[in-house]
Amino acid sequence: MDISTYLSESKKLVDEYLMKLLPAEGMEPPTIHKAMRYSVFAGGKRVRPILVLASGESLNGDREVLLSLGAAIEMMHTYSLIHDDLPALDNDDLRRGVPTCHKVFGEAMAILAGDALLTRCYEVLADLPRLSDTTRLSIIRDIAAATGTINGMIGGQVVDLESEGKPVNPRILEYLHSSKTGALLKACVRCGALAAGADERALNALTEFGSKIGLVFQIVDDILDITSSSEILGKTAGKDEKAKKATYPAFYGLEASRNKANDLVALALEDIRDFGEEAEILRSLARFIVSRTA
Amino acid sequence: MDISTYLSESKKLVDEYLMKLLPAEGMEPPTIHKAMRYSVFAGGKRVRPILVLASGESLNGDREVLLSLGAAIEMMHTYSLIHDDLPALDNDDLRRGVPTCHKVFGEAMAILAGDALLTRCYEVLADLPRLSDTTRLSIIRDIAAATGTINGMIGGQVVDLESEGKPVNPRILEYLHSSKTGALLKACVRCGALAAGADERALNALTEFGSKIGLVFQIVDDILDITSSSEILGKTAGKDEKAKKATYPAFYGLEASRNKANDLVALALEDIRDFGEEAEILRSLARFIVSRTA
Repeated sequence: MDISTYLSESKKLVDEYLMKLLPAEGMEPPTIHKAMRYSVFAGGKRVRPILVLASGESLNGDREVLLSLGAAIEMMHTYSLIHDDLPALDNDDLRRGVPTCHKVFGEAMAILAGDALLTRCYEVLADLPRLSDTTRLSIIRDIAAATGTINGMIGGQVVDLESEGKPVNPRILEYLHSSKTGALLKACVRCGALAAGADERALNALTEFGSKIGLVFQIVDDILDITSSSEILGKTAGKDEKAKKATYPAFYGLEASRNKANDLVALALEDIRDFGEEAEILRSLARFIVSRTA
Repeated sequence: MDISTYLSESKKLVDEYLMKLLPAEGMEPPTIHKAMRYSVFAGGKRVRPILVLASGESLNGDREVLLSLGAAIEMMHTYSLIHDDLPALDNDDLRRGVPTCHKVFGEAMAILAGDALLTRCYEVLADLPRLSDTTRLSIIRDIAAATGTINGMIGGQVVDLESEGKPVNPRILEYLHSSKTGALLKACVRCGALAAGADERALNALTEFGSKIGLVFQIVDDILDITSSSEILGKTAGKDEKAKKATYPAFYGLEASRNKANDLVALALEDIRDFGEEAEILRSLARFIVSRTA
């Protein structure tokens, strides 16, 4: 199967699981469930769930388990987008090509919809089908650490806010990228492996792979913010430079950033060199992430 | 031991556990860890952790386990206070007698500090000492449901926001009270029991007990909002009436509300009638909750 077919078919499956695992719109109180679904289904490429799926399938994991896990992580990701877009944070009106949650539902409901997606994520993780309780807990620990304050998503967001407008420094840049987006992307690869019953060696290899791919994803995101348009990205382009954000291209320039991303992908592919045929999709996904245009 | 000694000694212990289980202030990035600790240690009676402790001790549960669980739930509670106080929600400047999180650290950091406490809560729950993985997961499920959108804390907050200024109706009042604060208080009693290895009969009895005590707590909160002062409460008094909130006294009047609370406590004590001497503190705690003045 070629990667673009895999991406579109997987996205459809992920959306089915999200549809099933989110509370129905009609449930009381309806406004919050509408707001949650609005943001989850407002577009999005489902990169994180697809990473979970491809990682787990490289070890012949169970699709149903991986799709439930991927859907839960997409809820986590969507909560972070809703809160990041709030006026007090990035103050963004556009996300995934449509108005942001607070623009449609108001700030109060957007804050609560983020909280609710975060909470629902843990409910789904606690009930992941066909896994042992020990594996469920390992996944919960991994996701919580990847989204927390210490080298996790919230920590990255704090440093991002605090470094705006200040001179970029490579140490902060590294922290920012590995924590703000890298940690959750790495957790996708790791948790996919855990859910597929990875042995220690496979888990270590995929952890290394995920760590590099997470960084590549963010470097490419920084590049696209400069070279692409709001229409193609579905979010406001050029805002990193405007907000003087600490990005790879701002510090190293566009070409060096592109080279760094390509080198990292090559190294990531080395990490899973010993994997068989089943890892072909995961390899294609790594190449796709560095060559994507949106 | 009399109840006031128990309350003050337990509060001290809970604070020790919170001190230990929250990330240190100096950890990177420091601002978020300061904001988290600021709100957690800005006062608070620790009613929820003490309920966990008293419930678990009524079944001879392990103190260390119960205190870790209680501390995690206090983090959850504090997240909800920080987000509720935000300008877009209740817009409150005073909480537990001191300026609210967003007044001190700004809105962005307050939103993230709430997110971070919510996340840290699950990390602590996933690592609760000396419990089986199955019990840890049962507790995680209970807490997530109690704080979610369907009959949980976020659902209650949504209905609270949406019912402001509208005529109070008893169905909404019931929903509001059972979900906004009642669900988590009930979960404290239930999870304390789970952590103490309760059998089904004891768990059912404590679930009934917790459900009533949760409602009593909120009715008394509503009464105190009218009859007490900001100085004594450590938060703005009289704001329910000002915001035309759906409260018990607004619908039933003060005296009927007091009677309702007293009746519920009597019924709650019936639920745990068969419990032994070890439940004496829990009984005193129920009586304290209805007679408290702050």
